Amino acid sequence: MPSELKIYNTLSREKEVFKPLNAPFVGLYACGPTVYNEVHLGNLRTFTTFDVVYRYLTHLGYKVRYVRNITDAGHLTDDGDGGDSKIEERAKLEQLEPMEIVQKYTTSFHEVCDIFNLLPPSIEPTATGHIVEQIEMVKRILARGYAYEINGSVYFDVKKYMETHPYGQLSGRNVDDLLEVTRELSGTSDKKNSYDFALWIKTPDNALQKWPSPWGEGCPGWHLECSAMSGKYLGHQFDIHGGGMDLKFPHHECEIAQGVGADGVVPVRYWMHANMLTVNGEKMSKSKGNSFLPKELFAGEHKLLEKAYAPMAVKFFMMQSHYRSTLDFSNEALQAAEKGYAKLINAYSNLQSLVYSTAAQKNEAEDKEINDLCEQIYDKMNDDFNTAEVTAVLFEMSKKINSFKEGHIAIGSIAEATFKRLKDTFTAFIKDILAIDKADAQDDNTAEGLMDLILALRKDARDKKDFATSDKIRDALLQLNIQVKDGKEGTTWSKN
Amino acid sequence: MPSELKIYNTLSREKEVFKPLNAPFVGLYACGPTVYNEVHLGNLRTFTTFDVVYRYLTHLGYKVRYVRNITDAGHLTDDGDGGDSKIEERAKLEQLEPMEIVQKYTTSFHEVCDIFNLLPPSIEPTATGHIVEQIEMVKRILARGYAYEINGSVYFDVKKYMETHPYGQLSGRNVDDLLEVTRELSGTSDKKNSYDFALWIKTPDNALQKWPSPWGEGCPGWHLECSAMSGKYLGHQFDIHGGGMDLKFPHHECEIAQGVGADGVVPVRYWMHANMLTVNGEKMSKSKGNSFLPKELFAGEHKLLEKAYAPMAVKFFMMQSHYRSTLDFSNEALQAAEKGYAKLINAYSNLQSLVYSTAAQKNEAEDKEINDLCEQIYDKMNDDFNTAEVTAVLFEMSKKINSFKEGHIAIGSIAEATFKRLKDTFTAFIKDILAIDKADAQDDNTAEGLMDLILALRKDARDKKDFATSDKIRDALLQLNIQVKDGKEGTTWSKN
Repeated sequence: MPSELKIYNTLSREKEVFKPLNAPFVGLYACGPTVYNEVHLGNLRTFTTFDVVYRYLTHLGYKVRYVRNITDAGHLTDDGDGGDSKIEERAKLEQLEPMEIVQKYTTSFHEVCDIFNLLPPSIEPTATGHIVEQIEMVKRILARGYAYEINGSVYFDVKKYMETHPYGQLSGRNVDDLLEVTRELSGTSDKKNSYDFALWIKTPDNALQKWPSPWGEGCPGWHLECSAMSGKYLGHQFDIHGGGMDLKFPHHECEIAQGVGADGVVPVRYWMHANMLTVNGEKMSKSKGNSFLPKELFAGEHKLLEKAYAPMAVKFFMMQSHYRSTLDFSNEALQAAEKGYAKLINAYSNLQSLVYSTAAQKNEAEDKEINDLCEQIYDKMNDDFNTAEVTAVLFEMSKKINSFKEGHIAIGSIAEATFKRLKDTFTAFIKDILAIDKADAQDDNTAEGLMDLILALRKDARDKKDFATSDKIRDALLQLNIQVKDGKEGTTWSKN
Repeated sequence: MPSELKIYNTLSREKEVFKPLNAPFVGLYACGPTVYNEVHLGNLRTFTTFDVVYRYLTHLGYKVRYVRNITDAGHLTDDGDGGDSKIEERAKLEQLEPMEIVQKYTTSFHEVCDIFNLLPPSIEPTATGHIVEQIEMVKRILARGYAYEINGSVYFDVKKYMETHPYGQLSGRNVDDLLEVTRELSGTSDKKNSYDFALWIKTPDNALQKWPSPWGEGCPGWHLECSAMSGKYLGHQFDIHGGGMDLKFPHHECEIAQGVGADGVVPVRYWMHANMLTVNGEKMSKSKGNSFLPKELFAGEHKLLEKAYAPMAVKFFMMQSHYRSTLDFSNEALQAAEKGYAKLINAYSNLQSLVYSTAAQKNEAEDKEINDLCEQIYDKMNDDFNTAEVTAVLFEMSKKINSFKEGHIAIGSIAEATFKRLKDTFTAFIKDILAIDKADAQDDNTAEGLMDLILALRKDARDKKDFATSDKIRDALLQLNIQVKDGKEGTTWSKN
C-alpha cells in the first residue's frame, strides 16, 4: 500500500499527514527574493526545495497553485521597520531608479532559476504590484483593533494581540522574554513597544519609493506583502507556506498575526522551513570572504573554488541532503557529487536504450527487488520530501539498470510491467521531480561527445598515416572555429 | 563629419534631428504586450525594432532608460472601454486565476525575447503594479476638468479637451468627423460622447480583477497605464515613445490627451511606429489561417512553413527591412535571408581569425573604401534607423573581410587603424546593435557542423570498406543517443 505524504510542520514540530484543505487543489506559498542584489546560494537552496515540493505535489496529481513573490519595495535593512530600504540603498549606489534595480536583479534571479531548472511559479506577485491590497489589509487590521496609527505610520499591536492569541509559537520564541525586552530602538521609532512591527511606514521626504495612503505617503512594511498576496491568490487560509529558516522570526510569525488580525483566520496549515548552507563548515558570510554566488560557483570564479561545477551536479548535491539539514559546501563534497551525478545520468541514458523482450527464465527475486525499490522511493519522498534517501534509492535503481544494459541480468527475466514501472519511476524522479536532467547540459555533452569521437578518428588516421583524412578533419574544425592542441598530456580543443 | 541621428516623428510626419531633452540621458518607452496569449510575430517585430533603437542609442553613448510595460489588466476586447477583459476571458477559458494567465504568458514572452536576443528593458512595469499611480492620475485629470465621473466610471471628456487642445494630430484623424460621429455604442455605456474614453471602469460584480477607488470598485482604462508608468519613470515629458502602428489611434492619441489633461505637458517628443507584417502578401489573421507564432516559425510547425527557420536568421530577415515598411513573410524570402545571414556570419567568423601585419605595398584606394563603408553604415543607421541599408553595407564589408581572409587583398595594405575600425564597426553592428550573433545559435551550429564532419568520415570509411572505423562511429553515436538514417536522399540524423 502506498504511503501517505507527511510534512514536517514547523508549527507543531511534528511530521503530519498532508491533508489539503480543498483537494485536489493545493495552495503553496514560498517567500521569494528581495531583488536588490544577486541571489545567494542559500536562497537558491530554499527556492530549489520548494520547486521540488511543487513538482512532487503536481506529480502526485494535485492541482497546485504555487505563489512565490518578488520583494521590490518595503524591505528595510534591519528586516523589520528600521534602517533604509534595501532597494533604495542599492539604487543610490548604482545610480539607478529603484525599479531599474528591481528589473536588473529580477532578470538575474530568473536566469539563475532557469539554469537550475526551477519552474516558474504559477504566480510571481510583487510588493509594488499590491500596494492597494496591502493598504486594504492594514485597514482591516485597524478595524479589528490590532493596530494603531502614529505619525503617519501604522504598527501592529502585539501586546493587544497576545491578550487573545498566541504569538511566538512558530519560532518558539519565549513570549515573556519578548514582552519584557526593553525599548532598545533608536529614537526615530514611534512604536509603543519594541516588539510591535510596522504595517505601514511613513517615508522620509526624499524617499524614492512611496505611495499615498489614508495615513499619508509611505510604504508597506515588509511582513505585510506576503500576507496580502497569499490572501489574494490562495485565500485567507491555505495549505503550505515555505521559506528559509531565517524567516521564521519575525517574518513568518508576523504573517500569522497579520492574517488573524485582519481576517480572524490562522492563515497557514503547514509551515516548512529550509535549512542553511555552510562553506567548509562555516556559515557563509561576506565578511569572512567565504560567500560565493551561484553564478560564481557555475563559473568556478571564487578563490575557494577549485573548479567550475555544472549546475545540475550542484543541484544533485543539494538533493543529496534533506532540506531540513544544514548543507556544507566544499570542493571535496562537490566533486564527489559530480561523480555520483555522472553515474546517475549515465544510468538514465542507458535506460533510454533498453528495450524489453521476454526471456524464458523468470527471476522472481529480481522482479520483487525492483518493485520494492519503486515503492521505497515514494516512501522516502513521502517522508517529508527526503531527497537524501531518494537519491540513495536512485543509485540502487541505477545498478539494476546497468545490469540490464551490460547483460548481467536478462531484461526479460522480470515482468514487462515491472520494467515499465522501473523506467517510469526512475524517469519521473530524475526528470519531473528532482529535475536534474536539463537539456542544455545534455547538449553540451553532445558537442563534447562528438569531439571525443572526432579526435579519436583523427588519431586513428594519423597512426595509419592517412593524412588525407586528418587534413580533412583539421580543415572542417577550422571552419567551425575549433582549435585543437596536441600536448604532452593528450589533445585538447577549444572554440573561439 | 559624422551625421546626426534623425528620427521620423509620426507627430510631425518628418525626419527630425534627435535632440534629447536632457542629454546624455534618454527616456524611451515602448508599449509592451498584453499577456493573455502567445506573443505574435508582428508584436515581435515591434519589440525588435525598439530593442535596436535602445541598443543603438546606448552604442552612441546615451544613457538610456528603456521602459517597456506588461499589460496585465484593464485591456478590454474592443481595445477601448467596451467588451470583456482579455485576460479575464482567457482566465475563464483556461480555468486559471487571471494572474496565472499573466505569469504563463509573461514567461513565454520573455522566452521569445531571449531566443530573439532582445535585451530586457531597464524597467518592465505592469498595469496591476501601478493601480495607485493610475488612480492618482485620474484624480489629476478630474481636478483639471478634463474628465467626468458617471456611475462609478470615469471618462475623459474629449470635447472639453478639444476646446483648448488639438486631438487627433498623431493619427491624422479628421477631428470634425470624430465629433460628428453618432452615438453608436451599446446601451451599457454611460459616456457623454462616443469618442470619450474610459480612465476608470466600473467592473461587474463578478469581475476577477478589480480594485477599490474613490469611484468604487473597478479597473483602470487600458490607455491610462502607459501614461501613468511613463510619467512615473521617465517624467511628464520624455524623448521617445514607440509602438506598433495599430496603436496610433486610439491608444497613443489618448496618451497625449491624458498627459496634457493631467499635468499640462505634452508627454512625448518623438513618436515612432513600427509597421505591420504580411504573409505571402496578405495581412496575418487567425481567420485566414495564415497567422503563425514566433515559436511555430522557429520550429517549422505551421502548414505555411516549409521548414524551421533559425531565430537569428529570422531576425536578420526583419533587419533587412526598414521598420516603417511592411514586411512580407514567405518561405522564399526567409530562405534567401537564411543564405544572406550565413554569409554574414561566415564573414564575422573570418574576421575573428584575421590578424593584422604590415605589408610593404599600401593600397590607399582600398583603405579609403573601407573607411567610407565604416562611415556609411552610421549614416544609414542615423537615417531613422535604416537597418535595410545597414545590412547592405554589412554585405559590402563582408566582401572586404573575405578578400583579406582569402588573400586577394593583403591585410597590411590598409592602415592598422583602418583594419581596427572595420573590425570594431562590423562587430558592433552584428553583436551590439542588430544583435544577430547569439551564442546559442552558434552552439547549435557547432553540433551540426561536427555531425557533418562525422558523417563525411563515415562515408569515406564505408567507401574504403573500412568497417572498423564505421562501426566505431556507429557505436560512439549510439552512446550519445544519436540515430543515423541512410535514405535515398542522403543521410540524416536525430537525437533522442
